[in-house]
Amino acid sequence: MEVYLDNSATTKPLMSAAQKALTMMKTEYGNPSSLHRKGFEASRELENARQIIADSLSVGSECIYFSPSGTAANNTAIFGAAQALKRKGSRIVTTAIEHPSVQMCMNYLETQGFEVVRLAPDKSGNIDVEKFRNAVNENTILVSVMAVNNEVGSILPFEKLKKIIKAAKSPALLHIDAIQAYMKLELKPEKHGIDLMSLSAHKVHALKGASALYVAKGVRIKPYILGGGQENGLFSGTQAMPNIAAFGEAVKELGNVNSRYEKVSKLNAYLKERLSQLDFVSVNSPDNALPYILNISVEGIPSQVSVNALSQKGVYLSAGSACAKGHRSEVLTAMELSPKRIDSALRISLSFENTVEEIDYFINALKETYTEIQGTGKR
Amino acid sequence: MEVYLDNSATTKPLMSAAQKALTMMKTEYGNPSSLHRKGFEASRELENARQIIADSLSVGSECIYFSPSGTAANNTAIFGAAQALKRKGSRIVTTAIEHPSVQMCMNYLETQGFEVVRLAPDKSGNIDVEKFRNAVNENTILVSVMAVNNEVGSILPFEKLKKIIKAAKSPALLHIDAIQAYMKLELKPEKHGIDLMSLSAHKVHALKGASALYVAKGVRIKPYILGGGQENGLFSGTQAMPNIAAFGEAVKELGNVNSRYEKVSKLNAYLKERLSQLDFVSVNSPDNALPYILNISVEGIPSQVSVNALSQKGVYLSAGSACAKGHRSEVLTAMELSPKRIDSALRISLSFENTVEEIDYFINALKETYTEIQGTGKR
Repeated sequence: MEVYLDNSATTKPLMSAAQKALTMMKTEYGNPSSLHRKGFEASRELENARQIIADSLSVGSECIYFSPSGTAANNTAIFGAAQALKRKGSRIVTTAIEHPSVQMCMNYLETQGFEVVRLAPDKSGNIDVEKFRNAVNENTILVSVMAVNNEVGSILPFEKLKKIIKAAKSPALLHIDAIQAYMKLELKPEKHGIDLMSLSAHKVHALKGASALYVAKGVRIKPYILGGGQENGLFSGTQAMPNIAAFGEAVKELGNVNSRYEKVSKLNAYLKERLSQLDFVSVNSPDNALPYILNISVEGIPSQVSVNALSQKGVYLSAGSACAKGHRSEVLTAMELSPKRIDSALRISLSFENTVEEIDYFINALKETYTEIQGTGKR
Repeated sequence: MEVYLDNSATTKPLMSAAQKALTMMKTEYGNPSSLHRKGFEASRELENARQIIADSLSVGSECIYFSPSGTAANNTAIFGAAQALKRKGSRIVTTAIEHPSVQMCMNYLETQGFEVVRLAPDKSGNIDVEKFRNAVNENTILVSVMAVNNEVGSILPFEKLKKIIKAAKSPALLHIDAIQAYMKLELKPEKHGIDLMSLSAHKVHALKGASALYVAKGVRIKPYILGGGQENGLFSGTQAMPNIAAFGEAVKELGNVNSRYEKVSKLNAYLKERLSQLDFVSVNSPDNALPYILNISVEGIPSQVSVNALSQKGVYLSAGSACAKGHRSEVLTAMELSPKRIDSALRISLSFENTVEEIDYFINALKETYTEIQGTGKR
């Protein structure tokens, strides 16, 4: 049996998404910029996918720009906003628990004279909205916050930030990295005054190699990847059509978030209940975390030892973010967990495709792993 | 009948490449950064593709970095080199006929204080090596030149540039945009002292959404897309595995360039011979152009009118580069062709998959088009 519990690292493409990609490769292989029938076919699929993504956010399709990766979307949002607004101020407010594709941009902007304020979470993994209220001022040109933390699943107060920006009389654009939240929480960027929002295809059962950036009407940022002017100049480069068409197909098939949310909530509750019977396991995710992510620690066993042992039993999960391979979790560190807890952490990330049987299999595999490793002293 | 003659815009994926992508989607869907079996499977495919691309250039696999697009590869090569060497000089030597993904980077660097020298082609579309000798000096930090021009097929003297850089005692890195040349000409970057070379998957019968940058041993440039540190830090972002694995598969199947080159040379000769019988057609490509690209002008018919009419007959080609949609060709302008010639230009771009029958079909369609449009006066 194989149990894939690493859905925050990447997901298995839906069959319909894979089939759509195959069609794009076999017959609709034109370049969407080409002004002949083969190009128009591809262009139609491009706009069709754009409309589906737009509909999923209840926005106009002119607000959706396809990007080759969530990382490129985050880079463009942050550097593009900083370039566009640098004459209005120099402060950027973000958190200490962002994805590396945000963190690294912030580190770079600091070397260019920007002041970056990184808000830390409390011990539960949440960041109180008051911290943002205290940090955002008139000199702030960008607030960049993830909607859902990728390691512990905490939900950040991203829906309340625009009011804070306005109250502070700040010219800041609001960028939300919604890569772990998209299609898991209902996202209404217009309602909440979000200016920029990053999404990724391969986290929602489509393919690696496609992503989108939502840009609110009237918001102008500078492009970061320069060239032929595709995506209205914001993301140059021939669009990755098989991936983009598959992205649209997956989002269409996933449909409304609610039924999947309920299913995963029940699965998460069952998982927590089973884990509560294991005295060697402690839960690191906050109680109010997104049910798709559960971070735990396994007493006395280094994370990668558990990951390896479970992998051999066909259970796939991660020590933390796949993008931070090898580094000690900054999120768990910010939560002030003990080094022992941090170094034995595991992230279980669920999909609506996971089942109770898979959870049972995982629990047994975890028990076996604990017993085996305790027995050999290989800690 | 459908005749696809726009292979420089994009190519139809080989069936083996499409199948490889499908396998990656269906079973090997892990994130190559994940440290469990699903991740290792993906990682193995990633390294397998890297080795294939490396072998095709006779270089070590550690010199190949996957990028999401040729545009991202060109941006990284140019900005990364400029950042890395900016303390050693400020001059950049390039040509007036580069792809927009190079041109736009150059325009940006000019606003940052770099001096960009753009060498123009002669009337044949070629650029003599002497022009480079005169332009490169001790203050030059980057020479960026396409191997083959994407609109007329002229082959630039990219193999002779390293000697010129050395003779000028210049610290310049040599970047070659080989996107139109890869798998069509034999490329030996080590032999010719090339430091950086951009390739693209979708021009060689693989998928849109993958590309590679060759970086010579010992050469260090700054990353441009920042994040989780994938591709040894040079291209952050989860690798587009279906596309990358398909890239490797296509390059493996294409194999040696010579047999395809011979086939396409014969096809090109046949095409030229048939066209020479049409007194309303003139050839714009130089005689020594790469046989994969033939640029012509059709007397008195605006390019897009021909493209549309041919498209309706199932023949797909372009007015120029798909990436310069709507702009007057800078290459043909630099070649000092008359505005009439320029505005009636068509680019025929061949693949080894095209046949003599397809050329015959195209010639008939072109004759019909000319007669019809002459008849209606719709010029």
